Amino acid sequence: MPRLAFLGPPATFTEQALRSLPESEGAELVACQGSPAVLAAVRAGTADAGCVPIENSVEGAVGAVLDGLLADPPLVIRREALLAVRFALLVRPGTALADIHTVASHSHAIAQTRGWLAAHLPDAQVLLSTSTSEAAAQVARGEFDAAVSAELAAEQHGLEVLADDIADNPGAVTRFVLVGPPGPPPPPTGHDRTTLAATTSNRPGSLLGLLTELAVRGIDLTRIESRPIKDRHAEYWFHLDCSGHLAEPAMGEALAALHRRCDQVRFLGSYPRATGAPGPAAGAVAPAVPLSAAGADEFAAAAAWLAALRNGGRA
Amino acid sequence: MPRLAFLGPPATFTEQALRSLPESEGAELVACQGSPAVLAAVRAGTADAGCVPIENSVEGAVGAVLDGLLADPPLVIRREALLAVRFALLVRPGTALADIHTVASHSHAIAQTRGWLAAHLPDAQVLLSTSTSEAAAQVARGEFDAAVSAELAAEQHGLEVLADDIADNPGAVTRFVLVGPPGPPPPPTGHDRTTLAATTSNRPGSLLGLLTELAVRGIDLTRIESRPIKDRHAEYWFHLDCSGHLAEPAMGEALAALHRRCDQVRFLGSYPRATGAPGPAAGAVAPAVPLSAAGADEFAAAAAWLAALRNGGRA
Amino acid sequence: MPRLAFLGPPATFTEQALRSLPESEGAELVACQGSPAVLAAVRAGTADAGCVPIENSVEGAVGAVLDGLLADPPLVIRREALLAVRFALLVRPGTALADIHTVASHSHAIAQTRGWLAAHLPDAQVLLSTSTSEAAAQVARGEFDAAVSAELAAEQHGLEVLADDIADNPGAVTRFVLVGPPGPPPPPTGHDRTTLAATTSNRPGSLLGLLTELAVRGIDLTRIESRPIKDRHAEYWFHLDCSGHLAEPAMGEALAALHRRCDQVRFLGSYPRATGAPGPAAGAVAPAVPLSAAGADEFAAAAAWLAALRNGGRA
Amino acid sequence: MPRLAFLGPPATFTEQALRSLPESEGAELVACQGSPAVLAAVRAGTADAGCVPIENSVEGAVGAVLDGLLADPPLVIRREALLAVRFALLVRPGTALADIHTVASHSHAIAQTRGWLAAHLPDAQVLLSTSTSEAAAQVARGEFDAAVSAELAAEQHGLEVLADDIADNPGAVTRFVLVGPPGPPPPPTGHDRTTLAATTSNRPGSLLGLLTELAVRGIDLTRIESRPIKDRHAEYWFHLDCSGHLAEPAMGEALAALHRRCDQVRFLGSYPRATGAPGPAAGAVAPAVPLSAAGADEFAAAAAWLAALRNGGRA
Repeated sequence: MPRLAFLGPPATFTEQALRSLPESEGAELVACQGSPAVLAAVRAGTADAGCVPIENSVEGAVGAVLDGLLADPPLVIRREALLAVRFALLVRPGTALADIHTVASHSHAIAQTRGWLAAHLPDAQVLLSTSTSEAAAQVARGEFDAAVSAELAAEQHGLEVLADDIADNPGAVTRFVLVGPPGPPPPPTGHDRTTLAATTSNRPGSLLGLLTELAVRGIDLTRIESRPIKDRHAEYWFHLDCSGHLAEPAMGEALAALHRRCDQVRFLGSYPRATGAPGPAAGAVAPAVPLSAAGADEFAAAAAWLAALRNGGRA
Repeated sequence: MPRLAFLGPPATFTEQALRSLPESEGAELVACQGSPAVLAAVRAGTADAGCVPIENSVEGAVGAVLDGLLADPPLVIRREALLAVRFALLVRPGTALADIHTVASHSHAIAQTRGWLAAHLPDAQVLLSTSTSEAAAQVARGEFDAAVSAELAAEQHGLEVLADDIADNPGAVTRFVLVGPPGPPPPPTGHDRTTLAATTSNRPGSLLGLLTELAVRGIDLTRIESRPIKDRHAEYWFHLDCSGHLAEPAMGEALAALHRRCDQVRFLGSYPRATGAPGPAAGAVAPAVPLSAAGADEFAAAAAWLAALRNGGRA
Repeated sequence: MPRLAFLGPPATFTEQALRSLPESEGAELVACQGSPAVLAAVRAGTADAGCVPIENSVEGAVGAVLDGLLADPPLVIRREALLAVRFALLVRPGTALADIHTVASHSHAIAQTRGWLAAHLPDAQVLLSTSTSEAAAQVARGEFDAAVSAELAAEQHGLEVLADDIADNPGAVTRFVLVGPPGPPPPPTGHDRTTLAATTSNRPGSLLGLLTELAVRGIDLTRIESRPIKDRHAEYWFHLDCSGHLAEPAMGEALAALHRRCDQVRFLGSYPRATGAPGPAAGAVAPAVPLSAAGADEFAAAAAWLAALRNGGRA
Repeated sequence: MPRLAFLGPPATFTEQALRSLPESEGAELVACQGSPAVLAAVRAGTADAGCVPIENSVEGAVGAVLDGLLADPPLVIRREALLAVRFALLVRPGTALADIHTVASHSHAIAQTRGWLAAHLPDAQVLLSTSTSEAAAQVARGEFDAAVSAELAAEQHGLEVLADDIADNPGAVTRFVLVGPPGPPPPPTGHDRTTLAATTSNRPGSLLGLLTELAVRGIDLTRIESRPIKDRHAEYWFHLDCSGHLAEPAMGEALAALHRRCDQVRFLGSYPRATGAPGPAAGAVAPAVPLSAAGADEFAAAAAWLAALRNGGRA
């Protein structure tokens, strides 16, 4: 039975995201404290793969995940999930709004429900917990009156949902990734994403050069982050999400070009792009779908032409 | 007496950074709980300016600051400070390493001292606090045995420094910014930074176009982040730090170009680039200093030539 | 009465092009021997303007015109004309195809009718003249049996048209320009062309940089030529035809940028783009019409925003 | 014995250039009337290769050569020669300057000696011939008094050199190419040139895209021409001279990219770059020598890394 680690404690949004993936069927799910612990478990081999939030997280730092992916030994992303995060106000059974004097949650969850709290609980004291799930546990233990958390946590801690869908921006979506040790990526589906990281020497225009290598080959960029290199201020790892798949010639040529151009380049996985928010909290999500300008046929035709030229054939 | 808000509680690294700035002399310093509270105080006018970490933070989420800067009413950065963050292990007087069973700190501080803790306190339980300063307070109250914190917090809470400079990457530097309401920026010094944010429609190549507007005018990019737009998945605010100053013609022309090209563009300040890590924890920091390719003289000469042409003069 | 010089002798295609322009009404038309002589007449002030072929010429070297435009004192293009060049076989009255043993014309005209001559006059000797009009004169004088020339020359020299429209590519179009001394260009029509020349230092990527200055401002390139700088092998003047007009802000900003970037830049005129082949030999001509991405309104809005920023207004 | 065609008549600068090439040793040299005739002879197989001027010509139209290279069946450039063209004033023995009433030459030669003629023969009538060598023949036949021609023609026609090196820009250099049927190019020397032609659909930015494919792979452009496509006004063949050789990976990848991107692309040869002006009229010529940014080693390393990735190896 495969063991899959996830950012715990149980009942986090990450668990919810992991359960939406086919890999979770028949697998043992193991909660870890913090995304670094998830990655460490996969690296140590105590888990076969691990699920962590990577973007727009409400449970932990995206930056920590990006940094963590770059450590050794290498890991690659094998799948992604989008989850339309949905916050509920959880209380012990019988608690009414008027009874609530203290509300606890993770700082990101509080930030995303600030408007609702100000409107409905203007006099309650707001307190920080280390996760939304931990806040629910604290309410269950009687430490606070209410928690902003995932609905899933209500059941787990014997709490009631006093109000549902209380986020100020109800459409917020978090992206989670399932990471594992290197190996052949899942086969191309025609709607894939490739995640990379690269460093460039700190020269003017070096990022522009890197992006031009992608653009000139018709590869679209869907996300970019610069993460400081830990021991060198003002030098960065650029994290890039691109359209396309390692097995495609345009992506292969672009990766080879980055290998020549960049100080370092890390391939962090090619995997099917999630096209909607799976799971119970799902909603319609329409990601941008830029297609490569030149497909495998055009690359094959160009390669054949080049080979003929080099053999002295006509141009 | 000006009131300057900062990310508290007292004795955080943010307070240390703020005290290194000339603006703090003779000012009243007010601790706020969380970076959003700092920005809110400035917006509400209860503080004249506010200091928050913006990059490589150890106290809070950089993302929250970036997002917070984009809210209304507008704020601009007026100065930056670099601080070589230095972690110490704080204990109640008389505690020895062998006495330590529990160590608390903010998750980022724990992440940055993980190696030291594993080597010197392999059996201690590691616990999360909401800030390094709060961890020190908890140790002072007897809740935990040791805190990973700024040395400054020892004095404040009556603790002892059991070990100093325990970060795994001792050169880590955090960048803090002092933000205030819009107004004329500080005059150009020749070594300035300009911070921007822009959104582009989600078309292939749109980021490349944006960066080309900067590059073609000799403006160098020193940092880029994509932050998801809260209610639209897969659309982003790009946060950019550039070389140069609003008052310079190259920057002015580039800003106008972004105004024409981008869906939205926000000017977030032009201010002198910090050239070293000020304050007691300082170390040598050598930021990349790319210079603009064309200065005010070249712009003036080109403008005069153009005006003559338009008047029918010779080319 | 204005005096307009043209590439003669009388009855050339250049005269035909000049007569299609409104400027020729009521003007004295003066034939010059060679395009350099036309430009010299304008420079000397003995003509108010001059008409020469600039592209796909059948009468003379385009290169000579491009080089000639760059000499001193400066000249600018004030108008262009497209002429669908149409070749006829001219003979003395009474001559039949079977009587033709010698055919004369300018080398370009012979090149463009080579197929027809081979099919219809396979045994005739083909001889070179210095212009198509001169060839007609030679036929009139009895030196040769037939001339490949403009139909216009038949009338002038008392010849007959034995065959009309004998070019192998019947759609060939020649572009002519009317050049004059510098002065305010004709007002923008919304469908204008701007002609430039620039030199760049011989560094890798310097041409790419120059073209990027245009592209980033939405200015399209419709023609490019590199002409060797006379006394320096492997250094070039780049001649560029662009969409847009000197009076437009995008073009103004681009010109100023080239002034900063290039070793030398010469403005050679903004003028209405010819949209068809005027004159008796006209045919449908559909030039590419790329429009500027940002118009005067967007430039004005961006400039106002920038001015407000510099005054400390909100962004 | 190989037969090599050249732009005649005998004693042209083209013959001089051809004789400077190693291929001319032991070969039969055949004069053809006009560059098109040279190319036709090679295509017909009546010559094994042919020599024509391609740039800064004094004998004929460069444009005709560029166009001619694109016809079918295909031809490729196998070698180039640079010749420091040097004009002399040739007369029948015994003629003095004061005896000269008529001077003949090709129009380009007259253009390049205009200053000298105006200074030394201000009253002489200047007449056009179809080549400099033909002008010398005409002087020998007594039709004119003097010819501007290559010194080589003096000997051939029994004339005297009355003045040597009379060009207004004495450093002018003409580039000649030896073309032949397709076949494996000469092996790379490390200092090679590759000549290409390509058409792009007439969209804004299409030329910029084409040049970016070269620049991003470190290939430098040393010459660019746009030649109108004969039957379509405002569409062009772009003729490009680049640094590098077909056998090099950077050039191969770039050619394949152009094959995917462009409507048509023609490979016109990879051959050693001439580094000086050979032959008796030689002078020091220092061409720009931009080197490719990534050599075969970097390409091989990148390809190996990519292959490992695709096999599931670590990144």
